[in-house]
Amino acid sequence: MDNETPRTIQSVERACAILEKIHQDREVTLTDLAEDIDLSLGSLQTYMNTLCRCGFVVKESRTYSLAPQFLIYGEQVRNTLPLYHVGRKVVDNMAHETGYNAHLITDHNGREVTLYQSFGEDSVGTDLYIWHQAKLEWQLHWSASGKAILAHLPEKQVRSVIRENGLQRRTPHTITDEETLFTELERIREQGYALNDEEEISGLRAVAAPIHDQQERLLGSVSLSAPKSELPDDRFYDELPNYVMNKANIIQVELQARDVNEE
Amino acid sequence: MDNETPRTIQSVERACAILEKIHQDREVTLTDLAEDIDLSLGSLQTYMNTLCRCGFVVKESRTYSLAPQFLIYGEQVRNTLPLYHVGRKVVDNMAHETGYNAHLITDHNGREVTLYQSFGEDSVGTDLYIWHQAKLEWQLHWSASGKAILAHLPEKQVRSVIRENGLQRRTPHTITDEETLFTELERIREQGYALNDEEEISGLRAVAAPIHDQQERLLGSVSLSAPKSELPDDRFYDELPNYVMNKANIIQVELQARDVNEE
Repeated sequence: MDNETPRTIQSVERACAILEKIHQDREVTLTDLAEDIDLSLGSLQTYMNTLCRCGFVVKESRTYSLAPQFLIYGEQVRNTLPLYHVGRKVVDNMAHETGYNAHLITDHNGREVTLYQSFGEDSVGTDLYIWHQAKLEWQLHWSASGKAILAHLPEKQVRSVIRENGLQRRTPHTITDEETLFTELERIREQGYALNDEEEISGLRAVAAPIHDQQERLLGSVSLSAPKSELPDDRFYDELPNYVMNKANIIQVELQARDVNEE
Repeated sequence: MDNETPRTIQSVERACAILEKIHQDREVTLTDLAEDIDLSLGSLQTYMNTLCRCGFVVKESRTYSLAPQFLIYGEQVRNTLPLYHVGRKVVDNMAHETGYNAHLITDHNGREVTLYQSFGEDSVGTDLYIWHQAKLEWQLHWSASGKAILAHLPEKQVRSVIRENGLQRRTPHTITDEETLFTELERIREQGYALNDEEEISGLRAVAAPIHDQQERLLGSVSLSAPKSELPDDRFYDELPNYVMNKANIIQVELQARDVNEE
């Protein structure tokens, strides 16, 4: 069996595809679903009845959307990660100390997942970051936190993420060439931090550092972002990288202290 | 067809039951699943392959847990609710002004769902509230925010919530008698706010007010919680109810302003 594709269940795959379509479009009617999912309206109705009955989808008049159950399950994912519990306090602290936006990021199938973020007094772009958490399409190569993660994944995995997702352009500064990205990841590993110089949003800079556990397994990254006007070159290239690396260091130590405590 | 139970798909229901079992136990092996789900290990394996492939479950060695995709879908549920965007700022403000814990709550199938919460300087019980967000079993009748919601649901719906969930006891002060609860809900409607006097956690008090939209539809509630030592009777019965009702009022006005703006 090892070399064969594992068996799967078609109706469950279809239900998952329906959920993904609802996630992409925020709300859908049966007719909207029928455009993407190759099933009759009657069969789609049966799927929707099932997903509503199980509490994963809610129906309002003719429109379906994702149910609050996802919020609860999602909070469990967040809460079971020690990185979240330890990182939350450090990230609040970073936002408070700098006035910028601080983020705690991990990855899932080559995409960015925000575990926690905190907005400082001089916070800019808050709406974007709040919505960002709800989007599966957020890619790793255009942000500092994402590049800090990519730099510490095995090369084979990075190549497969690129094959899967491509290197979409966000701004004129986004790295969209595979070899340029690999050179950048090499530099990130050498210097210990990643920079995003208007690669995600024009006018926005960010600095990130990776977080590893005791076994040197990559857990995620921590970052600060602020408008360029707040981060002139000396602050962006010289001061902030050390600050962010120190915070990553604190998170790593706290995680180990927690592990030792639970032994 | 109207009087018949709508048709559903058994394999999708099973997949949902598997996800719920993983949610309850946080992480499971195939053998754990087989205890609750009436399927052979081989069939369960096929279900798990499917859920992993669709990105809803992750496998680490022999253990399955919910995938970060739930976090992203859950953030979408949160983000599509105007109540969250408007309430977030008010709740941060409440925590900052009082030093207590402030919560923005909605309901799903008779259970409490935390949309947002903010911890003030004198915050107590933070860990409980953080974990609370990840639990489906949190019931409406034992908290101030939950009772504020129950008081504004149709009586038929409240009776059906009670039939479904029961009135579980949390502390010696929890209301566990149906008619006592209905008297309490009547009082909450008259006075415009709900109190929780050590009904959820011994030593903890909370005050909540309901939030309605322009069409007088119930959206959720906003609340403050603090230890009894911080909330002596005068503050608990006299000052805080007005404070919390004022904040609910602000949220309602902001929601309507937003609606008018989007027309």
